[in-house]
Amino acid sequence: MNDEKSPALGVALAYYQAWSNKDLDLALSYVANDVVCDAPAGRIVGMDAYREFLAPFVQMLINSQMIAAFGDEERALVMYNTQTALVDNAPGAECVTVQDGKITYSRFIFDRAPFDAARRAKANATA
Amino acid sequence: MNDEKSPALGVALAYYQAWSNKDLDLALSYVANDVVCDAPAGRIVGMDAYREFLAPFVQMLINSQMIAAFGDEERALVMYNTQTALVDNAPGAECVTVQDGKITYSRFIFDRAPFDAARRAKANATA
Repeated sequence: MNDEKSPALGVALAYYQAWSNKDLDLALSYVANDVVCDAPAGRIVGMDAYREFLAPFVQMLINSQMIAAFGDEERALVMYNTQTALVDNAPGAECVTVQDGKITYSRFIFDRAPFDAARRAKANATA
Repeated sequence: MNDEKSPALGVALAYYQAWSNKDLDLALSYVANDVVCDAPAGRIVGMDAYREFLAPFVQMLINSQMIAAFGDEERALVMYNTQTALVDNAPGAECVTVQDGKITYSRFIFDRAPFDAARRAKANATA
């Protein structure tokens, strides 16, 4: 958990802190313009697509707790839990590669199933 | 990635190596009898339930690649990708607590959505 020894972890934690405070622009300041993110729904390429991906999540976020965070020179691995307007208990994990202080690659894992179920329930309720 | 500095990571990697080699009994030898695992579908408590949870996964596993692995004295955080008979690209992340050489707690994240979709497709195909 010592980010002094891992520049990559320092960036990953600053990024996490920003989005968990719902500061989308600050969060994206830690992301490279040509970022590549392998997310559950597929590959996201470039800042515009990444912003479109992150913005609705930040909007529905209620709070977040870090579970564990580690890193070395170039990469950081974090796991956290989030509470969102749609799903109450939505943990995620990210493995990020950092170059020149920005996240250039991210492998992102979360369970889409409860989000899909909540969206279906909402659609049925309004149908 | 240095497991010499982290006894927890040593156990997490031995556990990973065992299940990725489809050796269920060896994998479970690194798990405490009173293990608690918070998995996407809910909490799994105790060895019998954990075996029931792990066995079908090991059975459908084709191969696995470690993406990143870190640890400290008590905990390890790993991320890997797997190829299974049901889903081709199924990454997972685990944060494990290790006591006396065994995993006593695990927080486990993977995306259930492609597994649910594959099971529905299979059910429809045979209906």
